[in-house]
Amino acid sequence: MKESEEIIQALLKFRNERDWEQFHNPKDLALAISIESSELLELFLWKKAEDANTDKVKEELADIFSFAFLLAEKYGLDVKEIVFDKIKTNGEKYPVDKAKGTAKKYTEL
Amino acid sequence: MKESEEIIQALLKFRNERDWEQFHNPKDLALAISIESSELLELFLWKKAEDANTDKVKEELADIFSFAFLLAEKYGLDVKEIVFDKIKTNGEKYPVDKAKGTAKKYTEL
Amino acid sequence: MKESEEIIQALLKFRNERDWEQFHNPKDLALAISIESSELLELFLWKKAEDANTDKVKEELADIFSFAFLLAEKYGLDVKEIVFDKIKTNGEKYPVDKAKGTAKKYTEL
Amino acid sequence: MKESEEIIQALLKFRNERDWEQFHNPKDLALAISIESSELLELFLWKKAEDANTDKVKEELADIFSFAFLLAEKYGLDVKEIVFDKIKTNGEKYPVDKAKGTAKKYTEL
Repeated sequence: MKESEEIIQALLKFRNERDWEQFHNPKDLALAISIESSELLELFLWKKAEDANTDKVKEELADIFSFAFLLAEKYGLDVKEIVFDKIKTNGEKYPVDKAKGTAKKYTEL
Repeated sequence: MKESEEIIQALLKFRNERDWEQFHNPKDLALAISIESSELLELFLWKKAEDANTDKVKEELADIFSFAFLLAEKYGLDVKEIVFDKIKTNGEKYPVDKAKGTAKKYTEL
Repeated sequence: MKESEEIIQALLKFRNERDWEQFHNPKDLALAISIESSELLELFLWKKAEDANTDKVKEELADIFSFAFLLAEKYGLDVKEIVFDKIKTNGEKYPVDKAKGTAKKYTEL
Repeated sequence: MKESEEIIQALLKFRNERDWEQFHNPKDLALAISIESSELLELFLWKKAEDANTDKVKEELADIFSFAFLLAEKYGLDVKEIVFDKIKTNGEKYPVDKAKGTAKKYTEL
């Protein structure tokens, strides 16, 4: 089984044992990703980038991945495929000769 | 090569061609994940769960995964491992007999 | 009229002229605040604190205040009162002798 | 004293007693607003709009307002003025005849 498939299967098993599918509509899954992202962000609040607690980063990142995989599953999306597609799109928005070494948004390049 | 490794390699190649590693400190990567999560959320704003534009969901989800993989790489974390560890922790917080069929937070079970 | 009342009246007028009350349930207003907060955050992404564009900060902050005032109105909350109440609660969570000069969360003091 | 001025004075007094100005740079204040917005959002997660706990909404909304007022103060912005300016801008983006009764973004009108 592919790695992403294994992850999704484990998440679905956990969800189904608890009969939680009823709550996992796409809108609330998107809320959950956003909430977990903020919990990750909080680990860096008022701090330098290197001062976040690594164990907690690990946990919050796991939560983000979990809900993101569940939402991908909801839409039947293959994670590797959508990331590769996005890299291609971003390559057109941010051509190397214009984007190199600058953090500007593509609308400002 | 493992699937997650392939994804990370593609993301690092894209980043390094543009000399963007200098911007990608963990704090700003956490900001990026949070910002992309909100762009995903915006697709559901004022709408029913089923009315979001699927093509755009695909793109925003790809952005979230991209920055999440880059942050995992920064900390040397294996995505499958951290998700499986979190499923285990959550299994203790949300035992089936208490959590089944309810959306309550573990602190309220 | 009180300042906050003036602001709320102007926002309600704008909303009602467009017949938007139907979309402004508390959950979607909370989403809107979160989305606007991320747009504010994006102005600081990959940047030093002092490098955000001030005109854009002004606009995003106005959006956050707008939806926050609309949500306060929805629940009949008086902004000055809830902030003063929270300052009192936070004073108990963060007593001066423990909290002075540290950014630690109250759970870690 | 104006209402917003009273709120800001109370927040600055609380902050200065704890010597926290050193942490309150604009970037981290923007993070704080975003984090508090997500805590508000969490009150609605997996729930219908009307099922959030009102006392907790009150507290999270107070936190959002607090950091938003502190950021406005940082930039010397007058809250009423920036909201009124934004209402004017939005009036041009969302003319009544086009925007009435629809939740579409101005880019799609």
